[in-house]
Amino acid sequence: MSADQLRAQLDTLEAQYRALAERQLSLDLTRGKPGTEQVSLSDALDGILEGDYRASNGTDVRNYGGLDGLPEAKALFSKVMGVPESDIVIGGNSSLTLMYSVIDFALNVGLRGAESAWGNSDELKFLCPVPGYDRHFAICEHLGIEMIPVAMDANGPDMDEVERLVSSDPAIKGIWCVPRFSNPTGCVYSEETVERLARLGTIASDDFIVMYDNAYAVHTIDADAPELANIRDYSVKHGTESSVFQFGSTSKVTFAGAGVAFLSSSPANLAAFKQHLGFQSIGPDKVNQLRHVKLLQSPAGIAAHMEKHAALLRPRFAAVLATLENELGDTGMGEWLSPQGGYFISFNTRPGLAQTVVKLAADIGVALTPAGATYPYGNDPEDSNIRLAPSYPSLKDVQATAEAFVICVKLASIRQALA
Amino acid sequence: MSADQLRAQLDTLEAQYRALAERQLSLDLTRGKPGTEQVSLSDALDGILEGDYRASNGTDVRNYGGLDGLPEAKALFSKVMGVPESDIVIGGNSSLTLMYSVIDFALNVGLRGAESAWGNSDELKFLCPVPGYDRHFAICEHLGIEMIPVAMDANGPDMDEVERLVSSDPAIKGIWCVPRFSNPTGCVYSEETVERLARLGTIASDDFIVMYDNAYAVHTIDADAPELANIRDYSVKHGTESSVFQFGSTSKVTFAGAGVAFLSSSPANLAAFKQHLGFQSIGPDKVNQLRHVKLLQSPAGIAAHMEKHAALLRPRFAAVLATLENELGDTGMGEWLSPQGGYFISFNTRPGLAQTVVKLAADIGVALTPAGATYPYGNDPEDSNIRLAPSYPSLKDVQATAEAFVICVKLASIRQALA
Repeated sequence: MSADQLRAQLDTLEAQYRALAERQLSLDLTRGKPGTEQVSLSDALDGILEGDYRASNGTDVRNYGGLDGLPEAKALFSKVMGVPESDIVIGGNSSLTLMYSVIDFALNVGLRGAESAWGNSDELKFLCPVPGYDRHFAICEHLGIEMIPVAMDANGPDMDEVERLVSSDPAIKGIWCVPRFSNPTGCVYSEETVERLARLGTIASDDFIVMYDNAYAVHTIDADAPELANIRDYSVKHGTESSVFQFGSTSKVTFAGAGVAFLSSSPANLAAFKQHLGFQSIGPDKVNQLRHVKLLQSPAGIAAHMEKHAALLRPRFAAVLATLENELGDTGMGEWLSPQGGYFISFNTRPGLAQTVVKLAADIGVALTPAGATYPYGNDPEDSNIRLAPSYPSLKDVQATAEAFVICVKLASIRQALA
Repeated sequence: MSADQLRAQLDTLEAQYRALAERQLSLDLTRGKPGTEQVSLSDALDGILEGDYRASNGTDVRNYGGLDGLPEAKALFSKVMGVPESDIVIGGNSSLTLMYSVIDFALNVGLRGAESAWGNSDELKFLCPVPGYDRHFAICEHLGIEMIPVAMDANGPDMDEVERLVSSDPAIKGIWCVPRFSNPTGCVYSEETVERLARLGTIASDDFIVMYDNAYAVHTIDADAPELANIRDYSVKHGTESSVFQFGSTSKVTFAGAGVAFLSSSPANLAAFKQHLGFQSIGPDKVNQLRHVKLLQSPAGIAAHMEKHAALLRPRFAAVLATLENELGDTGMGEWLSPQGGYFISFNTRPGLAQTVVKLAADIGVALTPAGATYPYGNDPEDSNIRLAPSYPSLKDVQATAEAFVICVKLASIRQALA
């Protein structure tokens, strides 16, 4: 477009933006949390036991004991993770808590005895594929672990770079991964990426771990979404089971704040971790575990339940993606992927505009995830990534937010072009 | 008794012991856990919400959010602890987890910023009133904190000794307390002891904390059991609110493994601790908090509920105490207190016999808490303390265990006298 054409479009956009401002919107696309209809899908949980508090092995789930979970919970959720029933620990309501505990254990106590504690070293680093999940990065920052960003593409982290880094720097103790419907890009790691992650244990420092947060293992939106390769099988192939900690939960299956979380690793790691857990817990809430098994029952039961979630999420994602395509397709003002599952759409503005767009939106009552939140230390060097989370608002609000968002993107882009 | 009399009695006891051995008993008095009838008192919990998942302030308890608990849970449990509603955090199902988190935070992160982290010092110590709770001691041992035993009497820890130690050694960072129906002696700390504990913050190192595990705050067996003075009031009086962390839970009110835990301290400590918690949790299980408030409702509701527990515990404690009194009273073979609440009877053999008695009992199928478990590092210097926990077995089994126990005590004592 010529400068005159741009100026004409700018006038139109300014008018549209002012009109939005006058509507005094109050919209929020920040939180990757399930909507009210979604959590209602599991309302049967409370009361599902009908007074029967006995687990399959006779355990009274009301009382103390059982640090690593009920057998029937292990049987069900090990299938979700693709691991043996023996190699899983069922925790409380938060996989984040399990992740923090693993890092805290490796750092301050030592996965393989006190001499192996990461904290014995002066320099500690973690690889952080970007854009990524801010709560992963926050754990590292809180515990004083330096973060090194690594680029993501449609197949997952740039594995050439990851392999180069971990094989050359023993201070690198781990890597964060969200392998299926990655937060926020929505990509599914390719089979090659999964195998190369499993193989890192053969080239990295001895105490290196893959923090494999399989948060969206069953969270498909499109029926033909790609499957995730089984990292456990590849760890067995390469003899690296102890270098992988896999996490999952029912937070976005049943109740976001009252689900069941789980973790899997090698038998040696789990034995050490359970011993550590025993100092800080009398065991997880087994009553809630039993409720979950009664509600979900089997992998097929989980799949049927997740299809109900997909039916609620699908129109919300479609509304955002259609608006982006209709309004920004072929304009060069933004790039995005169309995720087939998970909770996010990752949008890249032209370089240098993410903060401007988020501010423009905030000023008219549209809350977006802060620019930079998907990068370590909140620092997006390109200032271009914005995470859109369409699950929680009503479809009408999602549509209104998407429309306001594209106006903000266009306005920022054209102002930049004219500057 | 003369040596001949002792030998005659020994023959009788050996015969009684052999007779017990032939019965192939399988009894267990080790675990301070509620009995099945006790946990059944709260069976209404599952299903009590009747589909209404909204808290009083409109919060959808199924979803994410709310790091420090529901307002109605704070209102109820702050009354149990005798603290303002604003100064409590409601956690997950385990007060042990909250205690571990506080110690971990103070040690590795710092209650008042990184410079205040205990881990910056080479030498760290904790005072451990003895006999005490093995899980408290295990936290210190796991985290490399040296433990210094301090004697207990009927009024609580020997406060002259505690004050002398904390005022002379800045490496002492805290003290463990179970102030009401102490584990295991069953004593209730006197009002003077409570005030002197609150005042420790004025004479100890700046980062000293009282770990005040009020686990049995409402767990009376006798209606006329002594009340516990309010440590919060004394901390306010002495300006030491930040030196006290008070803990409680419903583990022995509702479901031992699926209750609600809470902690109270000064506003400054809670703000720092919540910020720390935010890195490792998406918030506690609010659904379960709401269930608990619906079941227990008010302090009066809790008291009525606890009276049902007392009715189940009273005959079990009475059976043990009557057997001890009838068989060992005035023999000089043992000393014990008669607790008016809590979960334990603390028995002291003649010096040097606790391990022997526990072994004698184990050999005839009667499991007792390991001798030494109530001391740091499992080291009871007198080898005399044995913790009896009569809550879990049936009344018949409690009676049978008590009868077997006194035979073991007598046998060990007379063998010692004749040695």
